[in-house]
Amino acid sequence: MDSMTFVLFGATGDLAKRKIFSALYNLFLDGKMPNSFSIIGLGRREWSDYTFQIHVEQSIKTFSRRSINNSLKMEKFLDAFRYCSLDVTEYEGYKKLLETIERREEQLGLPENRIFYLSVAPEFVDVITSNIKDSGLSSKKGWKRLIIEKPFGHDLKSALELNEKLSRTFEEEEIYRIDHYLGKPMVQNLEGLEFSNPVLKAFMNNQYIANVQITASETVGVEERSDYYDQAGAIRDMFQNHLLQLLMVTAMHLPNKLSAREVGNEKRRIMEFLRPLGNKGVITDVIRGQYVSGEIDGRPVVGYKEEPGIENSSTNDTFIAARLWIDDALWSGVPFYIRTGKRMKEKLTRVVIEFKNPLKDLNMLQHDVMTPNLLVIQISPNEGVSLQLNMKNPLTNQIEPISTEFSASPKNVPEAYELLLFDALRGDSTFFTHWKEVELSWRWVQPILESFEENSLPLHPYRSGSMGPDASYELLQEDGFNWWDL
Amino acid sequence: MDSMTFVLFGATGDLAKRKIFSALYNLFLDGKMPNSFSIIGLGRREWSDYTFQIHVEQSIKTFSRRSINNSLKMEKFLDAFRYCSLDVTEYEGYKKLLETIERREEQLGLPENRIFYLSVAPEFVDVITSNIKDSGLSSKKGWKRLIIEKPFGHDLKSALELNEKLSRTFEEEEIYRIDHYLGKPMVQNLEGLEFSNPVLKAFMNNQYIANVQITASETVGVEERSDYYDQAGAIRDMFQNHLLQLLMVTAMHLPNKLSAREVGNEKRRIMEFLRPLGNKGVITDVIRGQYVSGEIDGRPVVGYKEEPGIENSSTNDTFIAARLWIDDALWSGVPFYIRTGKRMKEKLTRVVIEFKNPLKDLNMLQHDVMTPNLLVIQISPNEGVSLQLNMKNPLTNQIEPISTEFSASPKNVPEAYELLLFDALRGDSTFFTHWKEVELSWRWVQPILESFEENSLPLHPYRSGSMGPDASYELLQEDGFNWWDL
Repeated sequence: MDSMTFVLFGATGDLAKRKIFSALYNLFLDGKMPNSFSIIGLGRREWSDYTFQIHVEQSIKTFSRRSINNSLKMEKFLDAFRYCSLDVTEYEGYKKLLETIERREEQLGLPENRIFYLSVAPEFVDVITSNIKDSGLSSKKGWKRLIIEKPFGHDLKSALELNEKLSRTFEEEEIYRIDHYLGKPMVQNLEGLEFSNPVLKAFMNNQYIANVQITASETVGVEERSDYYDQAGAIRDMFQNHLLQLLMVTAMHLPNKLSAREVGNEKRRIMEFLRPLGNKGVITDVIRGQYVSGEIDGRPVVGYKEEPGIENSSTNDTFIAARLWIDDALWSGVPFYIRTGKRMKEKLTRVVIEFKNPLKDLNMLQHDVMTPNLLVIQISPNEGVSLQLNMKNPLTNQIEPISTEFSASPKNVPEAYELLLFDALRGDSTFFTHWKEVELSWRWVQPILESFEENSLPLHPYRSGSMGPDASYELLQEDGFNWWDL
Repeated sequence: MDSMTFVLFGATGDLAKRKIFSALYNLFLDGKMPNSFSIIGLGRREWSDYTFQIHVEQSIKTFSRRSINNSLKMEKFLDAFRYCSLDVTEYEGYKKLLETIERREEQLGLPENRIFYLSVAPEFVDVITSNIKDSGLSSKKGWKRLIIEKPFGHDLKSALELNEKLSRTFEEEEIYRIDHYLGKPMVQNLEGLEFSNPVLKAFMNNQYIANVQITASETVGVEERSDYYDQAGAIRDMFQNHLLQLLMVTAMHLPNKLSAREVGNEKRRIMEFLRPLGNKGVITDVIRGQYVSGEIDGRPVVGYKEEPGIENSSTNDTFIAARLWIDDALWSGVPFYIRTGKRMKEKLTRVVIEFKNPLKDLNMLQHDVMTPNLLVIQISPNEGVSLQLNMKNPLTNQIEPISTEFSASPKNVPEAYELLLFDALRGDSTFFTHWKEVELSWRWVQPILESFEENSLPLHPYRSGSMGPDASYELLQEDGFNWWDL
């Protein structure tokens, strides 16, 4: 791994505190950082290097999955951190930043490889990248990379604009867009699962699969983020990014090689074959919901309209379900159902693959309807794969479904940010969102955004603590299916 | 279920004591016997009905999977039993037997439905069935059935002769040949597994399967059966019947219906497509072994030649392994390996289906060779199905095999004899051996019998407590495989 400078915008912010410092620290402990590296933290506050280092150490103590039991290692790690106060809108500050970076590069004998991590509000992305270019921060002898967090726009138009601006400073290959769902170990497993398991390849197609169900449910409500969330809704907060990424990862064909380019091509292919909704499709295939009061874990909770900061007239979507069709040779005829929402019964992320109905033998007509085989990919909170088969119970002679987990994750596994940062440090963008995926995702959801804007789709209330409105179940019943609320 | 008379030849013998009485008793407890039935036990000894009933009760107390906790039920059950002393070679006795049967039929108002269960040495089968016919026992207004135990001949010629003799008295549809392996719940599950699990149907073919391994290993030696076993060998004792039946059940195509006729047709198809060995095949595809001294569970045991009743010059096979090919569209190119023997490391019966190698992604070349996916069907002592997949370990980032059982059998499940007798009582021969299967099995093993007879094949010694001779492993290594000694 190349020696480098890691330039962190938003170093005094929440994400840095909760995730980024700990991720870097754990990579350091595992020998997954370069031999020599410099980390420059940037923020508006006037901090000294020492204050910053104390802040980093405290953050790690509070949030790291591993405790600090080697103070020498920690000292060496903290020694890499420097702090620069910066108003990101002021060009002059970047000149000072450049001096700091170059001084450290000289001190440590580092090549001019620089990663810019933008952990900042979206409105600052444009000005920061422009200043990176104009100040000469990005014109160097080594390589440069940009790591950014979502949102990547708030609709198709804004996403196109943002990308155009980024591309003035960074090539697509230099941009690492983080979708932390792609950092979850089970999602990373999914992309390679068929390589290592020809058994799965055998049945992952429309000959055997009846439908695919992707659920990402939360129990929390809008929390302190009402300003943001009431504008974004479930469609922008979860669906356009995380859930469509899960769809791509689940449905993508086996690439020739698990490289960023090949995986990106296969994911893009899925989006290209995704049948556009059109105005009619929004009405027939999309369910919009909003939670009303109810109970979560036995505790009463208020409805969305009663949440602090939410207007009583809000028509914001806190739940969305949709039916999608991938019109390619492998998936043609197999509906994909996606649902996500807040204040649902359980917090979980799961893909359920339902197989076509078991054959009916004439001898079996006397028995009840057989349960379909299911392949269940549990992404969070626990990770695992389980396959549900039907077996004859020798006591009753009845065919009964039997299921067992394949793998539950070991304890203390690397967090999403650790896996993703490691990949960014070594220049592997396989598990990042590529521009084409972003663009095609926005393009696909655009009619939904518009119909929500026009309020032209019913807004189904659903009880807090349920799995969403009845309309979401009816969507599947139209096709003779049901959500598997296992 | 029709009311009937159950005529048991060999009622004072070992099988009746250990298995048959208990099986009937448990069926009775489960309401799986006809409302009205008569059981006539036959033996050479001069027993009274009462002595016989005491013997039946004692046998059940000792061997039943369920204890007797309802003496009224037991009394009612025993009340159905009568005893007749009979020298099976004496025609006159059958007249007396007929009178006894008819008297009971009259007393109990039974129709003339009669099952004849021949739990006797093979040399008596012929004379008994002839006498059944000649005495008029089998010419009645109801139905008749014959249940017989193996051996069904000791080679192709004797099997043909036996069948010809049986067929003078019984139609093929009336004959229930017991192979108790077909009564094991997991084997019965196998025949219907693809009906209820389309997932399995997807990969049960030569596109995905590399090879199939069938093992039936015993830890016991020749025990008290030296006279019989030294003549029969593993080839007749296990291979020709139980193991070829397991092969048929594993490889048979999904029938249109799980009826005796359809299942029989599909099993026969497998035998018809089984590539004949020829003289060359015996040499290249069959391994003969004989155990020498060693250790079983830490206890020293003597070699076969040192066993009581075995000559030092014996070339009898206590182990056999073979490679078989089913030359049909589904299995062409997939080797089936079968092995069975005494004094092996473990007592188990198992089918391992090994899938073709996982795809090799270029990114994975750095890692170790991946383990193939395995579908393991455990038949005894425990029952279960497990699928071994490869998953990325998020701690090490390595692909590792992960396996879990699908089903372990519940406690106190019906025994093979219970399941089989129930089927015979209601006239379902699905899980019995049909004549064509017997004939084709003998036809296939005939060249092996001859080469063993001529001692023209190496006799590989193997250590007691091992999994057989090295030559058995080399057989698979020729094809790039290995026995999965899980």
